[in-house]
Amino acid sequence: MIIIFTGDGKGKTTAALGVALRSAGWGRRTAILQFIKGNKKVGEWGAIKNIADIDIFQFVDDHKYYIGKPEIKHKESIPVALHQLKLIVKSKKYDLIILDEINNAIDHKLIDVNQIIEIIRNQPKTDFILTGRNASHKLIKVADLVTEMKKIKHPFDSGLLAKKGIDY
Amino acid sequence: MIIIFTGDGKGKTTAALGVALRSAGWGRRTAILQFIKGNKKVGEWGAIKNIADIDIFQFVDDHKYYIGKPEIKHKESIPVALHQLKLIVKSKKYDLIILDEINNAIDHKLIDVNQIIEIIRNQPKTDFILTGRNASHKLIKVADLVTEMKKIKHPFDSGLLAKKGIDY
Repeated sequence: MIIIFTGDGKGKTTAALGVALRSAGWGRRTAILQFIKGNKKVGEWGAIKNIADIDIFQFVDDHKYYIGKPEIKHKESIPVALHQLKLIVKSKKYDLIILDEINNAIDHKLIDVNQIIEIIRNQPKTDFILTGRNASHKLIKVADLVTEMKKIKHPFDSGLLAKKGIDY
Repeated sequence: MIIIFTGDGKGKTTAALGVALRSAGWGRRTAILQFIKGNKKVGEWGAIKNIADIDIFQFVDDHKYYIGKPEIKHKESIPVALHQLKLIVKSKKYDLIILDEINNAIDHKLIDVNQIIEIIRNQPKTDFILTGRNASHKLIKVADLVTEMKKIKHPFDSGLLAKKGIDY
């Protein structure tokens, strides 16, 4: 099953984390690859290290969630992330693979969408979740489930800062 | 902080679960109250019992997620659920309280929205997440963060069944 969580609202990565937690409840193994963002000081690391069935891979150390233009460090992390993705797929160790923020990376032309479609289509037994804004139409076409997380109201708009345990 | 995840798309409860996982990573305690739905045979139970900082409360045993008209058992579970909510709030034991599917219960007039607004407004130090379709405008007005999970594509539409580890 191919799932896409896209849109400008809060809840894309968070919903993917929820699915990982659910999967772990059934003994299914999850790999989370965080594209063009990464910060070991986020809440999910603390909880996830206690869940043996979820592994997180990060490729760039960053302070906050990435929504702007990619910097050189984000670009440089891409080949490493794609290499890791191929290793993970080849290992057949995971039932669910979460490609976090990959939609942004594709939108910024850092990754060729056809390459990703080829990888996920060759693994019909693995579930994939792709998160991030501006999901590619090609990806939406091959996906089984697509939800747009639409911002109705967000505290950042009124100047509030990100909150520990909620936003990271 | 008051958060609402609403809309007809997948990801509302799942995103709330993700926030609970994140919170647990920081040592914050979460209570999840499942209104008008409940099924102990769902994946989150298996994973959550391993996370000491998350407690789930269910009030009705049901086979699948509730989106239709409330049955008598759903109606009967409401006073019990509200009583439990008051006890949980009074205990001051939790940093995050998730009121799962409460928007549906309010929409079906099983719960008075003003009662809920009074409870959550009296607890400014506690974060609340309210999930479910058709969130009340009164609630959206008092909320800090509102995301509409909008269905773009859903496998149920093409006749596929709910999948273990993904949908439950």
